[in-house]
Amino acid sequence: MTTRRSDLSQRDQGGSNLDPHTVRYAARTIGMTASEIRALFAVASRPEVVSLAGGMPHLAALPLDVIAAEVGQLVASDGLTALQYGSAQGIPELREQICELMALEGIQAHPDDVVVTVGSQMALDIVTRIFCDPGDVIIAEAPSYVGALGTFTAYQAKVVHVEMDAHGLVPEALRAALRTEAGRRAKFLYTIPNFHNPAGVTLAIERRQEILEICEQFGLLVVEDNPYGLLGFRGQHYPALRSAEPENVVYLGSFSKTFAPGLRVGWALAPHGVREKLVLAAESAILCPPAFTQSVVSRYLATHDWMGQIKAYREAYRERCEAMLASLDHYLPDGCTWTTPEGGFYVWVTVPEGMDTKAMLPRAITERVAYVPGTAFYADSFGSRQLRLSYCYPTPERIKEGVRRLASVIAGELDLLHTFGSVHLRSLSGPQSPSPDTA
Amino acid sequence: MTTRRSDLSQRDQGGSNLDPHTVRYAARTIGMTASEIRALFAVASRPEVVSLAGGMPHLAALPLDVIAAEVGQLVASDGLTALQYGSAQGIPELREQICELMALEGIQAHPDDVVVTVGSQMALDIVTRIFCDPGDVIIAEAPSYVGALGTFTAYQAKVVHVEMDAHGLVPEALRAALRTEAGRRAKFLYTIPNFHNPAGVTLAIERRQEILEICEQFGLLVVEDNPYGLLGFRGQHYPALRSAEPENVVYLGSFSKTFAPGLRVGWALAPHGVREKLVLAAESAILCPPAFTQSVVSRYLATHDWMGQIKAYREAYRERCEAMLASLDHYLPDGCTWTTPEGGFYVWVTVPEGMDTKAMLPRAITERVAYVPGTAFYADSFGSRQLRLSYCYPTPERIKEGVRRLASVIAGELDLLHTFGSVHLRSLSGPQSPSPDTA
Repeated sequence: MTTRRSDLSQRDQGGSNLDPHTVRYAARTIGMTASEIRALFAVASRPEVVSLAGGMPHLAALPLDVIAAEVGQLVASDGLTALQYGSAQGIPELREQICELMALEGIQAHPDDVVVTVGSQMALDIVTRIFCDPGDVIIAEAPSYVGALGTFTAYQAKVVHVEMDAHGLVPEALRAALRTEAGRRAKFLYTIPNFHNPAGVTLAIERRQEILEICEQFGLLVVEDNPYGLLGFRGQHYPALRSAEPENVVYLGSFSKTFAPGLRVGWALAPHGVREKLVLAAESAILCPPAFTQSVVSRYLATHDWMGQIKAYREAYRERCEAMLASLDHYLPDGCTWTTPEGGFYVWVTVPEGMDTKAMLPRAITERVAYVPGTAFYADSFGSRQLRLSYCYPTPERIKEGVRRLASVIAGELDLLHTFGSVHLRSLSGPQSPSPDTA
Repeated sequence: MTTRRSDLSQRDQGGSNLDPHTVRYAARTIGMTASEIRALFAVASRPEVVSLAGGMPHLAALPLDVIAAEVGQLVASDGLTALQYGSAQGIPELREQICELMALEGIQAHPDDVVVTVGSQMALDIVTRIFCDPGDVIIAEAPSYVGALGTFTAYQAKVVHVEMDAHGLVPEALRAALRTEAGRRAKFLYTIPNFHNPAGVTLAIERRQEILEICEQFGLLVVEDNPYGLLGFRGQHYPALRSAEPENVVYLGSFSKTFAPGLRVGWALAPHGVREKLVLAAESAILCPPAFTQSVVSRYLATHDWMGQIKAYREAYRERCEAMLASLDHYLPDGCTWTTPEGGFYVWVTVPEGMDTKAMLPRAITERVAYVPGTAFYADSFGSRQLRLSYCYPTPERIKEGVRRLASVIAGELDLLHTFGSVHLRSLSGPQSPSPDTA
């Protein structure tokens, strides 16, 4: 005991490297490191910083008074159920409503095949849990959602990225990846077809059947992550991959962007046998999802004009996206390019060769603007010339000011680069980052 | 595609054994099977059945109108925060309040070492995730919490049970287990010191230091699960293991039994280095716990006489426990024994030799009474002579009626046994179940 206590006093002086429990951790714990987004949130949340980093929805568009009254009535009338334990699969009423909602994207599904989760992040976690042994391969777009990459790493799966262009995942690139040795060990394709995070692009309708057929041909399951599907700026909906292929697609949905993320209500829709395993995995992970938040969502869907609310959201996002695109066009130096979203939260920017967006970030924070460096969205440290900007949370005026500051930081870096040459050798000598904007 | 479709139509006729995705599952998924409790809930929830099976708190004791008003005000005044994304570690106000609450059991802790989880089940999940590789050993009481055993199995850990008696875990038995080959591979001791689920016993004060010292000596971490600690019938509190040994104990707490389980708010308190890993594991599992449910709990603790509420709960449970113990004494045939809880939710019953509580369950359900067979609480299929009764949810009258029905089922089985001999060979020829009631 004396020995460890002494270690601990050293730890208090020297930081957490001297954690006495280090020898006890599982192999998977070695790969768990703080994500770039999370470390950044602490700094970027200072009010003087314009954060174009986070993906926080524009909750000010919600009628809080109306929701307050509904939630109060829920507790008073149904509290004995809503505050009690529920089933591991989620409450039946909500699973029925989720099926109605998914029908908007052409999905025909039975409530019995829906599993309610704590945000779609948990759906990602339990899908990976039931399918992936250490060393298994997951195919993902290049770039891909940072939170998914973190989950895949936690299960010691290896990610193989596949190129996107302005029309989403490139079928030929997927086919080529699946023919490699790593590709043959792939368990599933993880894809965000609509208003991609972080790339801001959408998988072209005419590619969807082809992607499904390639996965079918190579025996690959599809995990379709669709949190933004109802947030197309023109109110357009795309047919879900799941709508064409019910038996080979696990579909993930979420109320975080269409209602509110603080409730953490998402879901997975899966083929029946997979659904059974997902429920068992959910039970061992959390026993059951909160009946209370599920009841709040269910009541909201039953009593509220939720389609009207989604329209209000997407019009706010369209306005903000237009502000961002106009500002990028106006302020960014020559040599920068970016994607043009038709919905969702994000624009993906590529800066000139020789620059390193991760190395540039501290300077940007000093200039009171925050973004997420591109490397966060690759499992293989590509993305050094890319960055993700989100337009969902700041007002159009703040977005304009943020882009102006960012442009000035980029211009300053370019000046240094032209004067002294690149100090970031990796981005010159390393592999080119496949990216929907450079491809 | 043709082949799989044909598989699927077979599946539709023949049940889920023909799941076409079976070949794709991870090794850990093989061990995921439906728990005996879960399969039972569906049947036992019929109103004519007196369920002595579930662990649902007596929520009718809550002042729902007051809580409804508070929750409504929370949404109206703080909705922009409470409905937004939060941190992976949990909201700071709640973590401070949790530290004040833990002080009741002698724990001195800093809010920075608390991780809020989706019920303490999730805390169990992420603790196991960061510590256990497949094949690692976890030491647990015999019997132990069924939900913990499910989580340990999901991570392919092996459970070694250690004997309890009426005073909880037996120190000598723990020492002996740690000297075995399996014991030397143990990562942690999982223990429920207070008002044990399912055994209903409490670890004697005078054993606590000894248990900690044994774990220290053998290099074993302690995971202390304490959901019932504040529910002692006389309002008594026991010093937490964590209070004596901050650096070698991960403490798990929950608001499910002291407030409401439908919010799914629990927590882990861990040494600093472990806490860092837990937050990363939580982030990959669910991104962040629901800010909304955390805010509801935080506001409840800040505005409500929550200690008075706990007093109301524990008085209801004391009355129900007394009704159960009196009924057991009155109705159960000779040869049955049971534990005498001083708090919590459960009584652990041992039936005469030759009987099998799992085989008896369908007959009990037919007689309109439900319980959980003892085997659910062992990783090694011991417990065939035991069953768990819970007194938390039914009224005293229903408890009396349920025990009366149960006694009649047991008496009927005993008659058969005496007439025809045991048809349940395993419980005669198999190993004796270590149990706090037979030890």
